[in-house]
Amino acid sequence: MDETPQEARKQKLREIIFGTDTPAGRYFDLSLIVCIVLSVALVFVDTIDSVHNRYGDWIRIAEWGFTGIFTLEYLLRLYCSAHPVQYARSFYGVVDLLSILPSYLALIFPGANFTLVIRVLRLFRIFRVLKLLRYLSEGNILLRAMMQSSRKVFLFFFSVSLIVMVLSAIMYVVEGPEHGFTSMPKSIYWTIVTITTVGYGDITPQTTLGQGIAALTMLIGYSIIAIPTGILTSEISQEMVRKKDLRRCSNCLKMGHEVSALYCDKCGNELETDL
Amino acid sequence: MDETPQEARKQKLREIIFGTDTPAGRYFDLSLIVCIVLSVALVFVDTIDSVHNRYGDWIRIAEWGFTGIFTLEYLLRLYCSAHPVQYARSFYGVVDLLSILPSYLALIFPGANFTLVIRVLRLFRIFRVLKLLRYLSEGNILLRAMMQSSRKVFLFFFSVSLIVMVLSAIMYVVEGPEHGFTSMPKSIYWTIVTITTVGYGDITPQTTLGQGIAALTMLIGYSIIAIPTGILTSEISQEMVRKKDLRRCSNCLKMGHEVSALYCDKCGNELETDL
Amino acid sequence: MDETPQEARKQKLREIIFGTDTPAGRYFDLSLIVCIVLSVALVFVDTIDSVHNRYGDWIRIAEWGFTGIFTLEYLLRLYCSAHPVQYARSFYGVVDLLSILPSYLALIFPGANFTLVIRVLRLFRIFRVLKLLRYLSEGNILLRAMMQSSRKVFLFFFSVSLIVMVLSAIMYVVEGPEHGFTSMPKSIYWTIVTITTVGYGDITPQTTLGQGIAALTMLIGYSIIAIPTGILTSEISQEMVRKKDLRRCSNCLKMGHEVSALYCDKCGNELETDL
Amino acid sequence: MDETPQEARKQKLREIIFGTDTPAGRYFDLSLIVCIVLSVALVFVDTIDSVHNRYGDWIRIAEWGFTGIFTLEYLLRLYCSAHPVQYARSFYGVVDLLSILPSYLALIFPGANFTLVIRVLRLFRIFRVLKLLRYLSEGNILLRAMMQSSRKVFLFFFSVSLIVMVLSAIMYVVEGPEHGFTSMPKSIYWTIVTITTVGYGDITPQTTLGQGIAALTMLIGYSIIAIPTGILTSEISQEMVRKKDLRRCSNCLKMGHEVSALYCDKCGNELETDL
Repeated sequence: MDETPQEARKQKLREIIFGTDTPAGRYFDLSLIVCIVLSVALVFVDTIDSVHNRYGDWIRIAEWGFTGIFTLEYLLRLYCSAHPVQYARSFYGVVDLLSILPSYLALIFPGANFTLVIRVLRLFRIFRVLKLLRYLSEGNILLRAMMQSSRKVFLFFFSVSLIVMVLSAIMYVVEGPEHGFTSMPKSIYWTIVTITTVGYGDITPQTTLGQGIAALTMLIGYSIIAIPTGILTSEISQEMVRKKDLRRCSNCLKMGHEVSALYCDKCGNELETDL
Repeated sequence: MDETPQEARKQKLREIIFGTDTPAGRYFDLSLIVCIVLSVALVFVDTIDSVHNRYGDWIRIAEWGFTGIFTLEYLLRLYCSAHPVQYARSFYGVVDLLSILPSYLALIFPGANFTLVIRVLRLFRIFRVLKLLRYLSEGNILLRAMMQSSRKVFLFFFSVSLIVMVLSAIMYVVEGPEHGFTSMPKSIYWTIVTITTVGYGDITPQTTLGQGIAALTMLIGYSIIAIPTGILTSEISQEMVRKKDLRRCSNCLKMGHEVSALYCDKCGNELETDL
Repeated sequence: MDETPQEARKQKLREIIFGTDTPAGRYFDLSLIVCIVLSVALVFVDTIDSVHNRYGDWIRIAEWGFTGIFTLEYLLRLYCSAHPVQYARSFYGVVDLLSILPSYLALIFPGANFTLVIRVLRLFRIFRVLKLLRYLSEGNILLRAMMQSSRKVFLFFFSVSLIVMVLSAIMYVVEGPEHGFTSMPKSIYWTIVTITTVGYGDITPQTTLGQGIAALTMLIGYSIIAIPTGILTSEISQEMVRKKDLRRCSNCLKMGHEVSALYCDKCGNELETDL
Repeated sequence: MDETPQEARKQKLREIIFGTDTPAGRYFDLSLIVCIVLSVALVFVDTIDSVHNRYGDWIRIAEWGFTGIFTLEYLLRLYCSAHPVQYARSFYGVVDLLSILPSYLALIFPGANFTLVIRVLRLFRIFRVLKLLRYLSEGNILLRAMMQSSRKVFLFFFSVSLIVMVLSAIMYVVEGPEHGFTSMPKSIYWTIVTITTVGYGDITPQTTLGQGIAALTMLIGYSIIAIPTGILTSEISQEMVRKKDLRRCSNCLKMGHEVSALYCDKCGNELETDL
């Protein structure tokens, strides 16, 4: 394992930037999170007119500061990564690029409003510190429960969308354009607003028949929410029982520890905990 | 099993149209789904005034194209079905007929708006590809759980409707016609809007007493949603445990496989999976 | 058990009126339910102005017909009951009386609007046919689960009301009377509208700080709904498991039958089923 | 244990004020609760203009009466507490102080509105009678379930806030200031109003694209509510099973009693019950 000094430096940089185990690595991640949160907060605050008018110049300066930091970080990651192309194409690589691109694009297309959306993606970089979750994915109860129930949930949403379309068509015919149901898309919008129990009230049924169908829509929405909850709850319960059965002490290999247990009840060894 | 050539052709057609096992059958189902989705999308888009004014003629042509396809499909199904009358009377037969009727009816009663509703039923034909679910109905956890809990859920809705009626009457008396509670049906509409936590805000209590009763109504609605969720969740959990106990390998007949298991843990044979 | 002819007639009447086992008893209950539903529907429909103006006289006549029927029923119940005073004081006795009183009171105080509320109580008489539930009360999973969890649910509502009051006070101070928060009761009303996710929109926060606190209120309301659902679901699951363990065949006394089982799996005897 | 008469008096006072076991202690707690509820009700009622104008003077007098009572209580607690400084610094000590401070502060800064908030904290003193819960904290199923699931719930809220921010930014760009989305904070407010299914309707999307994204937001909010419910329900179920396994008779030490059991099924000794 004799490395050139350059290789050694690269290796060390990689540990700091990509790793989370060394103090330097943790410090790097922490300062990055602070920068991300601050830069996103800046983007948000900048949209308030009074703030923009008074502190607009300061915000632009800070904005360029953060862009500089993130550009430096992106270049360092590219430099010290073992597989630069692979990194650039990975989800995080794309997110990293997207978080600096808008600022440079803003130089070319000044005042472009759509860059705001892309800038928000900068927040997604906070997910990077969550990469430790990757090692836990096998044991991740929540994720497994959701995948187990994905077919049932898909069928549920398929049925809901059929109900929504039928109800939308009926309401469109019953209420008509004069009461705000000007088109089928608008009617579908109303039905979703109603069936999810959001209920803006920007479009409301005016006829007695329409109000009756609306009441039916609400009751459907109110009761079918029990279905995904029931499915997911049962799956999570199952996963928890299975998890408990499989949880093994890494020292004495005894299995069947409680999910909440911190130490092996046979040899006292600390147990690994995950999400 | 010697068949006339006509019989053989019928049999082959039946496999393509009613079956889902052959490549041709799957291709037929897929093109049908595409046609259904497109024709329904067309119906929806046609209700937008600007689209109707600009592309109205094209939509009418496409509409007749789809009607032709669905008419052909209906006639083919009638022709190759083993029991044409039985098919015509079945749920899917009626849906198939309903999906072509409106277009022809529109020729006789031009501009009839109510045909829109019937045209939406065309989407129901997408359920046909779901007929494979029929073979799974015995093991369908969701359906069994819902049937198991139907009595409890009925009692729940009966109690809710009693609460709704009493609260409606109280609010009608307390608020009165001058605050929008012009009649009992309107008051029931308001109560359902409130108890399901939809809350349009088109009718709101104005008096302090009315707002107090409204707050009570909301809290009732907010807490009783736990009841159907609780019932259904418990039933689904029970069904899952039972399902697991009964799951049998078709090769070695070993029972008690996990719901998520893909292979028999005794002989390695692939297990059947269903919803 | 020698009875006078009068006693025998009383006994027979009692079987018809209070019983549900004989065909006559079932027929009596059914006609009563029809009368109740019709008379309640009449009360509801009468509140619609256009209906009242056109059919007001007919409704008044039908109203008196139903009052006559219910008065006769009440007197018969009093007459044939084994303990008339006890019946008159029971829940159902009071409901029966309340269902005829308003009509007679309306003669004395004409146009009294508050009688509407009492008339709705007439519907509560439909609960009488539910008296068969009484024999099932011991095994009633839902009721036991709710009673088991009543202490937890009380604590939940106590905590919620504390949160509501604190948030109401804060919003009252932050938004003030100029944005619709004219008094603490109004502010509490707003908080309940928000925390139950009803969201009428008749009072909405206007200041940025107020909108922030409102967003927090919504998130609290959105997440704490999980608590009563979780409590009740767990209790129902527990009750179901216990119920299954205790379910006994009345023939061979074998215990431990599935909740959904219809026949004893040892001797084939039909099992009793309840809610 | 020979004490000076003063010590003995202090000890007795402590039993009355801090204790809940003696009749005097219970009587003290009860009168305190009545005072707290009354004084809070007074604060609430005082905010209604018509009440304030008519009974303002009486309310001020009663206010000072309650302040006197609570001041006396605070001083007595300080006096008879074994560790006065520790009490003064404890949560309840701070709450006790906060419940009398506003009235005195109101003398110095007349008409200060912010004291209302602090006065509401007076209600928190009702929690003091809940201190018996402290002895139950180990067995508290609800609290343990919530702590067990806190990591999952945190991750859930973290994901939700990311979704909220992305959707807010998209809506801000799509709808723009002319439809009420005047700034990112306002857009976030709208997204939370929508995703929690509150739906005030004070800001609603006007463009078709905006309504489509709004419909998506609602469906996300409608379905993800299943996740915390599922997590908490499973944890509560687990805790209940564990609790049952660990429940021990204090007489014969037999373990494994039902959560709902009142007596030991081996020796008939009364079992301790808790939340």
